[in-house]
Amino acid sequence: MSKLINNKDLSFLLYDVFNANNLSDIPAYADHDQTTYDSVIKTAQRIAEDYFANHNSKADEHEPQFDGEKVSTIPEVKEAWKHFSESGLLNARHSYDDGGMQLPALINSACCGLFTSANPGTAGYPFLTSAAANVIQAFGSDEQKAKYLPGMFNGRFSGTMALTEPDVGSSLGDLTTKAIPQEDGSYKLKGQKMYISGGDQDITENIVHLVLARVEGANKGVKGISLFITPKFLVNDDGSLAERNDVKLAGLLHKMGYRGTTSTVLSFGEEDNCTGYLIGEEGKGLGYMFKMMNEARIGVGLGAAMIGYRGYLESLDYAKNRPQGRKPSSKDSSSKPLNIVEHADVKRMLLAQKSYVEGSLALCLFASRLVDEHEAGGHADSGILLDLLTPIVKSFPSSYGLKANDYAIQVLGGAGYIREYPVEQCYRDNRLNPIHEGTYGIQSLDLLGRKLWMKNSQGLQLLMERVQNTLKQAKDLASLAPQIKRYQQKLNVFSQVVMQLGQSLQSGKVDETLANSALFLDMMGKMVVAWLWIEMASVAQQKLGDSSNQEDQDFVAGKVQACRYFIEWELGEIEHQAELLKSLDSTCADMQENWF
Amino acid sequence: MSKLINNKDLSFLLYDVFNANNLSDIPAYADHDQTTYDSVIKTAQRIAEDYFANHNSKADEHEPQFDGEKVSTIPEVKEAWKHFSESGLLNARHSYDDGGMQLPALINSACCGLFTSANPGTAGYPFLTSAAANVIQAFGSDEQKAKYLPGMFNGRFSGTMALTEPDVGSSLGDLTTKAIPQEDGSYKLKGQKMYISGGDQDITENIVHLVLARVEGANKGVKGISLFITPKFLVNDDGSLAERNDVKLAGLLHKMGYRGTTSTVLSFGEEDNCTGYLIGEEGKGLGYMFKMMNEARIGVGLGAAMIGYRGYLESLDYAKNRPQGRKPSSKDSSSKPLNIVEHADVKRMLLAQKSYVEGSLALCLFASRLVDEHEAGGHADSGILLDLLTPIVKSFPSSYGLKANDYAIQVLGGAGYIREYPVEQCYRDNRLNPIHEGTYGIQSLDLLGRKLWMKNSQGLQLLMERVQNTLKQAKDLASLAPQIKRYQQKLNVFSQVVMQLGQSLQSGKVDETLANSALFLDMMGKMVVAWLWIEMASVAQQKLGDSSNQEDQDFVAGKVQACRYFIEWELGEIEHQAELLKSLDSTCADMQENWF
Repeated sequence: MSKLINNKDLSFLLYDVFNANNLSDIPAYADHDQTTYDSVIKTAQRIAEDYFANHNSKADEHEPQFDGEKVSTIPEVKEAWKHFSESGLLNARHSYDDGGMQLPALINSACCGLFTSANPGTAGYPFLTSAAANVIQAFGSDEQKAKYLPGMFNGRFSGTMALTEPDVGSSLGDLTTKAIPQEDGSYKLKGQKMYISGGDQDITENIVHLVLARVEGANKGVKGISLFITPKFLVNDDGSLAERNDVKLAGLLHKMGYRGTTSTVLSFGEEDNCTGYLIGEEGKGLGYMFKMMNEARIGVGLGAAMIGYRGYLESLDYAKNRPQGRKPSSKDSSSKPLNIVEHADVKRMLLAQKSYVEGSLALCLFASRLVDEHEAGGHADSGILLDLLTPIVKSFPSSYGLKANDYAIQVLGGAGYIREYPVEQCYRDNRLNPIHEGTYGIQSLDLLGRKLWMKNSQGLQLLMERVQNTLKQAKDLASLAPQIKRYQQKLNVFSQVVMQLGQSLQSGKVDETLANSALFLDMMGKMVVAWLWIEMASVAQQKLGDSSNQEDQDFVAGKVQACRYFIEWELGEIEHQAELLKSLDSTCADMQENWF
Repeated sequence: MSKLINNKDLSFLLYDVFNANNLSDIPAYADHDQTTYDSVIKTAQRIAEDYFANHNSKADEHEPQFDGEKVSTIPEVKEAWKHFSESGLLNARHSYDDGGMQLPALINSACCGLFTSANPGTAGYPFLTSAAANVIQAFGSDEQKAKYLPGMFNGRFSGTMALTEPDVGSSLGDLTTKAIPQEDGSYKLKGQKMYISGGDQDITENIVHLVLARVEGANKGVKGISLFITPKFLVNDDGSLAERNDVKLAGLLHKMGYRGTTSTVLSFGEEDNCTGYLIGEEGKGLGYMFKMMNEARIGVGLGAAMIGYRGYLESLDYAKNRPQGRKPSSKDSSSKPLNIVEHADVKRMLLAQKSYVEGSLALCLFASRLVDEHEAGGHADSGILLDLLTPIVKSFPSSYGLKANDYAIQVLGGAGYIREYPVEQCYRDNRLNPIHEGTYGIQSLDLLGRKLWMKNSQGLQLLMERVQNTLKQAKDLASLAPQIKRYQQKLNVFSQVVMQLGQSLQSGKVDETLANSALFLDMMGKMVVAWLWIEMASVAQQKLGDSSNQEDQDFVAGKVQACRYFIEWELGEIEHQAELLKSLDSTCADMQENWF
């Protein structure tokens, strides 16, 4: 087992659960097979282990510095960037014509996950660059593509997305950065952006900021927002750098975790000379950004899952090698202490972690497979299902990956709390994930206020079909019978809740129905992940159940037990949540400011 | 409202809920009244605000350094120590004869809480010193008291408790530090201790370590453990310092939070010349230490509650002043943004925090009042109840205070994640509390394996009498009727669980019954805190319900609403926990090492 992931589990998820092999039915992926996939993953794992994991802790202890002129990062980050960009991974998802590998999202996610497990801070730079390049690829003009993409694909340029402003936060419709049209078709930007990850650094020659701004005189609200390419250095037609643009680093922000990625306050146009280039049409900026944002949200979920996974493996390793204490029933104080993995409460914390992180990873890989089916395969249904699930894919791992890290610390005890061991950093790093790319609360409003009802709830129907299919496939497996029964019972509870909330929204009780949206997000997340656990446990038994290999037997037993845990312990909580949701419980909404 | 606590709430808890005024019925406290209490609290608050809160963040950013010779801390810590020790608070609980104030534990806890809220790292030094002094006072010889206590009371000496060893951790019975008797009655100690808070520093002239060690030839297990005074510098009879003792700082550990308090690895007797002085009798060391440990456990709970409280106040302040977004039902993007305290999901996170931290503080103050009733007042019942509750007093705030800090971060969003705002430090600091002074798992075994059944479960009976009394007092309050009904129903569920687990233990299923002890600890914690919420809400209505003052009305409404939240949202979870507990669910215990 690597420190980054259980490779047997990854392989199982990719090939047994999510059938990566049949992706080659999609024409764009026709050239690929398991050999090419495994080889890309192996390369990613090697680079992640050699050039990312090596400075995860160092980059945390030596965060980027700003001397008022220049940002400096430790040399290992540049080295990691170099190896990442040379590997072709920055461009892996793109077409052969664009110099890419036409790699499926599913396999690309597996690769990305390895980097986050190794070093989420440093992995931030290439991930943001890929995301920004995707937007230019999808919505930029041919000229823009020719000018910026080669540098973003070969590692000369990095990318950012600059949405948030100091006074605005999540409420993007209120943003105030201005864009003033110029005679040559470009714009002059003016405004301040905050929490911009990778907004400045000393790793790449240039930084391509994608900036949301409002063209002078445009509508208020989200419909007045446009998107601009705003490079740190202007770029000549041949790709070489021209003069410095008027984008200034106002300062670095100092995060609790993810310290390796700079978090910046950027001033655009302090000297009224910040040039930006409109992407696509005016007023459509938020739509373009959301295309990128939806992928970024899968990325956040995946990152949270993998930081959770890393902590799980660390704490498992510790528990297997740390002798301490005896069974409660033991009276013999001279007997040999047990390794703590033998204690029931430690098993509980490890099993909870396993169920959260393997479940979260499965969820994110499933979403990535849906991206492939929809974007490359043209299956509209997969796109609809993905839309529905995106808030959950972003939020469940952010919430439960962090819980996993909390347990990892607790398994290590005192050692878990000190920086001499790696798990406290996982916990600090992972705390970002319920916040960025749309907070937990924002995701819950998106799910319960919009996604669940879009296209006559077709997404939910598609999900239910998949669920029923899994239950049908698993129905003859005796070891899963109690869990399947339990799941079906909870499914009824869940369906009632959805129906009731839908009626209540239709009757116009919008604020009342959405007041407890966070509770619903958690509940539905558990339903979805519990389904994936049944799927995993059932596939494991069907594919490996007859294996005479002990390792396979252990693997199957582990999947079955984690499925049992997730359904008995975690899913069991939804009855109470359902009660609160169905009654439109107003305890929180009724609270008044002056009563606090 | 101060940044450290809601003073109206503190006053309500002390005088209305826990009747501090009638403590003067206890002879030792006969001289006191509310005026003297308020004056001590005011002094504590002033010192906490002026000399502790001032460097909370600085001490976190500039943690103690060890250059191989000497530890250095920032000057503000020494200044804080000076003011704390000059205030007489180090010695506040002790008798007039010993130069103390004979201050009740209840009032002392209120004072201590203010310091933890202001700066838990720096507060660690005086708290550990008081705790160590208490042990010497209780079990030391007259000579030992005369030699060490004056320095520990006036601030020349600090104290530590040195239990944990690198290879032993929570399993104290296995500790290996040796003590070799010398002809003069002293001992030579040899061994290594780890995670010793305050184990070295440059704040005080001397450090008095209380060290657990095993006299050569003593029994294995806990009965072979003795307790030794082992000062950094030996002390002459007149209190002046003699030669340096053979206690060496092997190194500092670097914590995620609580960075202001040094965490040390100490070597005793590397040069075979570490002198220790036996406290009390050989073989009774763990008993003595536990006397101190039980008070330390209340201290941990209180600290966790107050770090939670601090984060709550910070996030409340932010939410009241941060405009962002509109109601979900709002369609007008040009309308003025609301302060986020108006959003239902933010209210939820604030109300949850309020219910956790005010409930936790109430729990710790209740425990402190029991200390007074038992130790100073001689009420055996109070001691029995305190014994039962101690694992909960330590654990509930550790778990829920941390959850509160998690919500505080989420309320602030991006600002919550950066070190430019104070709440991320609260979260890091508070993560220590479920670990030290007995982990959550250890506490849960103590509760379910021992405390619940001691003296024929008399503790539980006493608790139930108090609970019934509260329910009776509150029964005519219409606003609490639904919560009381709900509580009674949960009380039945809880009682069934206790009965069933008791039978199961009696039938010899020790490991099976204790396997889910952590779940039981959480469940019982919620029962106890929910009871305290009914008590608070009911007392608030009875004492302030008729007030014509708007602030009083708001206060009562807040207590009632938080009670409603805690019972409807949090206590609602116990049904599911009860199911798992009653069935002796073996999902976790069944898990095998190789299946992970």
